[in-house]
Amino acid sequence: MSDSAALTGKTVGGTVLSVDAMGGDLGPSAVISGMAKAAAKNDDLRFIVHGPKAELEALIARKRGLSDKCEVRHAEGVVTMDAKPSLVMRSGKDTSMWSTIEAVRKGDASVAVSCGNTGALMAISMIRLRKIEGVNRPAIACLWPSRNATGFNVMLDVGADIRADAEDLLQYALMGASYARNGMDLARPRIGLLNVGTEEHKGKAELKVAAELITRGADAADFEFVGFVEGSDLPSDRADVIVTDGFTGNVALKTGEGTARLIRELLGEAFKKTPFSRIAALLAYTSLRRLSKRIDPRRVNGGVFLGLNGTVVKSHGSADSTGVAAAIKLAARLSATGFNKRLAARIAQSEAAVANIIQPEDPQS
Amino acid sequence: MSDSAALTGKTVGGTVLSVDAMGGDLGPSAVISGMAKAAAKNDDLRFIVHGPKAELEALIARKRGLSDKCEVRHAEGVVTMDAKPSLVMRSGKDTSMWSTIEAVRKGDASVAVSCGNTGALMAISMIRLRKIEGVNRPAIACLWPSRNATGFNVMLDVGADIRADAEDLLQYALMGASYARNGMDLARPRIGLLNVGTEEHKGKAELKVAAELITRGADAADFEFVGFVEGSDLPSDRADVIVTDGFTGNVALKTGEGTARLIRELLGEAFKKTPFSRIAALLAYTSLRRLSKRIDPRRVNGGVFLGLNGTVVKSHGSADSTGVAAAIKLAARLSATGFNKRLAARIAQSEAAVANIIQPEDPQS
Repeated sequence: MSDSAALTGKTVGGTVLSVDAMGGDLGPSAVISGMAKAAAKNDDLRFIVHGPKAELEALIARKRGLSDKCEVRHAEGVVTMDAKPSLVMRSGKDTSMWSTIEAVRKGDASVAVSCGNTGALMAISMIRLRKIEGVNRPAIACLWPSRNATGFNVMLDVGADIRADAEDLLQYALMGASYARNGMDLARPRIGLLNVGTEEHKGKAELKVAAELITRGADAADFEFVGFVEGSDLPSDRADVIVTDGFTGNVALKTGEGTARLIRELLGEAFKKTPFSRIAALLAYTSLRRLSKRIDPRRVNGGVFLGLNGTVVKSHGSADSTGVAAAIKLAARLSATGFNKRLAARIAQSEAAVANIIQPEDPQS
Repeated sequence: MSDSAALTGKTVGGTVLSVDAMGGDLGPSAVISGMAKAAAKNDDLRFIVHGPKAELEALIARKRGLSDKCEVRHAEGVVTMDAKPSLVMRSGKDTSMWSTIEAVRKGDASVAVSCGNTGALMAISMIRLRKIEGVNRPAIACLWPSRNATGFNVMLDVGADIRADAEDLLQYALMGASYARNGMDLARPRIGLLNVGTEEHKGKAELKVAAELITRGADAADFEFVGFVEGSDLPSDRADVIVTDGFTGNVALKTGEGTARLIRELLGEAFKKTPFSRIAALLAYTSLRRLSKRIDPRRVNGGVFLGLNGTVVKSHGSADSTGVAAAIKLAARLSATGFNKRLAARIAQSEAAVANIIQPEDPQS
């Protein structure tokens, strides 16, 4: 606590993020570089960084002005990418990931950021932060490049849980709407429910029930329900938030990423094919760079855990400094808007409404 | 029958396809143009075409040499895109779609092609062609641009049925392997099972059971099982055939298509942005055109219904003449290799093996 007080003392009015320096594929130097990049663009940022103290302090010292903005909390252990979540929950107390979440639980930092093992991060977050009163299954929300004015859609759940029943899907709609309002400045987000067709008679039975629940919840929760959407709508402008179970969402997310990567690689090869195309690449440099930025998954890096008492941003395991900086930027924004308190308030407020929805009132009334 | 005899009389040795001219978004002229394109590249092709006789004959007459290769079978009704499959099954006997499937059932044509309503086409195919002995759920297989030597992966099911249990997934593996052998010339296809992670402990319980069944079936059925694959592997070279339930497969297919479409559109916009980028587009024309062909969904047009007594190729509803020609080319290839008979033989042969797998023998033996 004294350490934290020391940081807080230095940072009156600043945004304090808790950052796990370990567990990413590229090691702590990519994380520290990402912090430096983000800090250079946002003077309010302060970090509590978790991992082996001596190593991290040496890395931080190399970045001009960063050490004044950081407090390092020593943690010996690292959660590896193939670690079983159940094992980490039992014996992971000495890890940087555990320490990262603990700083949020204690209120020393407002948002946690980690590039580590998703399953373990969710498991630690669940047992330490616990679910918001009224939430059955937490979810992971990601941003998806789209034709929308903001440039992105929100999709959830992309992998917190492989199951979701109709009531869970309604909660995802509520949480996704709250995220879109606070993270993307959309006053009245449009929610779509992912299905294999847009016609009402299509798809799984639980989706029809969920569609009915979400329809009835829309007005009370201040969002618009656009009905069923299809996979092709993930990058479209039909909805701002796309709701699905974690199995389908995870497959869709990785399919989209894989397809974008294949095309990017083929495009690169196409431009190296002939002398003409090499010159072409030079001429079109700015335009292509803009496109590449637009579809670069590193720019939208950061899955957000929703439904817990504290916000956790999960960065890609393979994130480089640009990716880490993007995740930190997102975390800072969610911290600045007081997102998690607002989400909890929405859930509490909606709980009564949801109860009414699930136990429908007399249709005559 | 006399009509068909007339065609067969003209076409000794030819490949006779049954083509539904109606029900596509662009109307019969796109279908007839697609037939003409395909026929220009393959002299063996003959068509039994279904729809309003006068209209179709007028369209066919405009294409040089096509009328000699076509027999038109009159059908008054059209199955619309929003028609309910159950209704079409009861009262769709006068439609071009019904007539198209009927020609395959009677043996007048070897493979059917339609751009119409997928659900209705599957429903009619199910009741008229019936399932191959031993198949529980038919599946729709599609081709997916990938890093493989063939340029494609097969994925199934992409929407015949929203459910699939472990035994269905094993049958999809068998049918997908057969399709890859006959449609893509792969002697020993590699099969992957779609999941949210490649580790054995991840995913749904039925997927673990399916993985075990497919592992045991691999040797008897002459394919290699590479285990769990993720969404990111759909365009990769880890597997030749990707097996999943029809809900997940449909979402993945449409997500991939939507992502590719967004990038293609953004690329087009990028090249129109500045005078430099316009010149660049000219210089890189050939390379870009090659890329665009590679990722153009029209080039891989054609979902194939597997597991029925007769092969049905479902072309995209929005297919233009290039798309229809691609679907016809695929149908011709499957006809030429005698695919459906081979598939039925594989299923029959595997049935005993499958029975052994599902009812495992004494592990000591």
